[in-house]
Amino acid sequence: MGTQIPPSTAREPIRCKAAVCREAGAPLVMEEVMVAPPRAHEARIRIVCTSLCQSDINLWKRKDFPGITPRILGHEAIGIVESVGAEVTEFSEGDTVIPVFLSDCGECSGCRSKKSNLCSKFPFKVSPWMPRDDTSRFTDLDGNTIYHFLSVSSFSEYTVVDVAHLTKIDPDGIQMSSACLLSCGVSTGVGAAWRTADVEEGSTVAIFGLGSVGLAVAEGARIRGAARIIGVDMKPEKFEIGKKFGITEFVNPADCGDKPLSQVINEMTEGGADYCFECVGLPSLMEEAYACCQKGWGKTVVLGVARPMSEMKLQCFDVLRSGKILTGSLFGGLKPKSDIPILLKHSIDKDLQLDKFVTHELDFKEINTAFDLLIEGKSLRCVMWMDR
Amino acid sequence: MGTQIPPSTAREPIRCKAAVCREAGAPLVMEEVMVAPPRAHEARIRIVCTSLCQSDINLWKRKDFPGITPRILGHEAIGIVESVGAEVTEFSEGDTVIPVFLSDCGECSGCRSKKSNLCSKFPFKVSPWMPRDDTSRFTDLDGNTIYHFLSVSSFSEYTVVDVAHLTKIDPDGIQMSSACLLSCGVSTGVGAAWRTADVEEGSTVAIFGLGSVGLAVAEGARIRGAARIIGVDMKPEKFEIGKKFGITEFVNPADCGDKPLSQVINEMTEGGADYCFECVGLPSLMEEAYACCQKGWGKTVVLGVARPMSEMKLQCFDVLRSGKILTGSLFGGLKPKSDIPILLKHSIDKDLQLDKFVTHELDFKEINTAFDLLIEGKSLRCVMWMDR
Ligand SMILES: [Zn+2]
Ligand SMILES: [Zn+2]
Ligand SMILES: [Zn+2]
Ligand SMILES: [Zn+2]
Repeated sequence: MGTQIPPSTAREPIRCKAAVCREAGAPLVMEEVMVAPPRAHEARIRIVCTSLCQSDINLWKRKDFPGITPRILGHEAIGIVESVGAEVTEFSEGDTVIPVFLSDCGECSGCRSKKSNLCSKFPFKVSPWMPRDDTSRFTDLDGNTIYHFLSVSSFSEYTVVDVAHLTKIDPDGIQMSSACLLSCGVSTGVGAAWRTADVEEGSTVAIFGLGSVGLAVAEGARIRGAARIIGVDMKPEKFEIGKKFGITEFVNPADCGDKPLSQVINEMTEGGADYCFECVGLPSLMEEAYACCQKGWGKTVVLGVARPMSEMKLQCFDVLRSGKILTGSLFGGLKPKSDIPILLKHSIDKDLQLDKFVTHELDFKEINTAFDLLIEGKSLRCVMWMDR
Repeated sequence: MGTQIPPSTAREPIRCKAAVCREAGAPLVMEEVMVAPPRAHEARIRIVCTSLCQSDINLWKRKDFPGITPRILGHEAIGIVESVGAEVTEFSEGDTVIPVFLSDCGECSGCRSKKSNLCSKFPFKVSPWMPRDDTSRFTDLDGNTIYHFLSVSSFSEYTVVDVAHLTKIDPDGIQMSSACLLSCGVSTGVGAAWRTADVEEGSTVAIFGLGSVGLAVAEGARIRGAARIIGVDMKPEKFEIGKKFGITEFVNPADCGDKPLSQVINEMTEGGADYCFECVGLPSLMEEAYACCQKGWGKTVVLGVARPMSEMKLQCFDVLRSGKILTGSLFGGLKPKSDIPILLKHSIDKDLQLDKFVTHELDFKEINTAFDLLIEGKSLRCVMWMDR
């Protein structure tokens, strides 16, 4: 579609197509919606392409809070600023931007700290509203509210995003379908290896779960010069895929017999991996990852999104005497506005190979097929083009 | 006593006084024991003074494994090398030494790594034997085996210690009763602030449990320039004591009313402390500490020795999104042979004030009084002199 909006309509709502989630777990409904003009500190974005992330699937399925409907899902995208609201100086019409679910206000103690990427002004939450005034910019043609998702809502030709959730990029020499992936999953994995874990050259890495995030961790660890990258997944075909991303060894928990997975990895690595990354979201797997990271300095990084209220258990004495480090991160510990341009540069220089993650390209209207492909494990990243 | 042994007796057993634990939880029995000559890689040490650490009490009480008796407890001490076994080049007769429960072989991957203080050649365990050949050097006068404790067994006029568990120090200008404390508790606390947590200048620290280890954390944090040091303890009198060690604020969980302790500290610190140290060994307190360390960069360090098999629970989603770091350390992350001399230098320079920890000095024969004082919470460190 890509409706062309002249500047004079900037203060008007835009009518455009969106894939609306009207019922948790049910196919999205392609319908026309109204997108209100951006308010202060907001920009209205024409989405160029959007891809599907596992979190879209997980939260789409959930009927309980925050599974509020109707809403517009999608949070991995790239687009062009159509218009900006009051007090926006950082962006102007025509800018190429990447929206991110994590805020980067640049002013709070978290954003100013070198040690954190967590904004305390707009802390991360799964809210159905715009972050600054808890209202929506979407309505259906009858004027009923449609809710937002993760401050992005990219499954729409147009969306409104707070400037704290937008990163401006230089479009020179980039592929839109690749750059789009820096909006969530690939950044999360690469960032976790780079920023959260700070993987050292020559080290041993174990990655639990070889979806896009896990493979992006491998890509990040490979770039950092890890000597061994052990991939763990239940699907044997993941090893061949993983090789492209730097996975050097593969463990299928189904083949471990009576041995706990952690014991197998402890034996392979003579005492444990230097870095373990849990990318599935299973408490038991987080515990296994912790159990096979190296005593004395091993770091376990939790990236998988577990079910609400689920808990992992650690033996207290083990925490004390092992000297191991447990941590986690959102968006791979990256600060969106400063780190996305760095990753983009790595991708232009070809050390970060984003195109390897793009297994499918579809038209936006085929979005339910994209859901099927990811649910069935057939895709890594399926990029949907809005304008074809 | 301090029996003077001429070099000619170096290959002979020494008969001397020891406080033997003949039954878990029962008063120690002062009796004469035989201390065999040191074997290869071992030194026989004349203990000058020894102090009592909470771990002596905890393990003395336990009837289940590893509560094997009869054994000689004690692991915080300073002494003089009486004789050395074969292949010992690092030490000779007359050297002043500090024994440590943690090994520092200097050769294994752990000892060679800058990131760890965990020796993989002689990993930490509560063993009743000498570390290298799983035998004992102690017998009673009937020839029955008496067991070792934490590779030190300092509640004896003479003991045998593996060279990997000994640090040579320069006795020039030191006070034996103060230097003795670097053998365990004070090093653990100061080291945790310095090496494990790497406390930054101007930061906020919360310490859960104000025994000697907790106060040593405060001392370490004070030396590192922490701006706020919040002490948490059930005993109100601990605040006055704590002030001497740099504690600036005090929270008594009994005064928190309906509020969880973590909430009180989160409110005091506008979002949490930069560093939390758990020095009690309670899973629930470890969870509270984790809950009130700052999102984004807060570090929780577990130092308390919990009951065997006890577990702490963490919400998986919290680990993911908080970016907090959980870790623990033995001996404060210090490498005994290289770090004890550094702490000793700080103590000679008076920035580390060891004498503040010495609340009592007793004769060795009064050891059961020392136990009572620590159990009743009346002492911080009670130093017992062997030779008076
Ligand atoms: Zn911020
Ligand atoms: Zn995502
Ligand atoms: Zn070693
Ligand atoms: Zn101790």
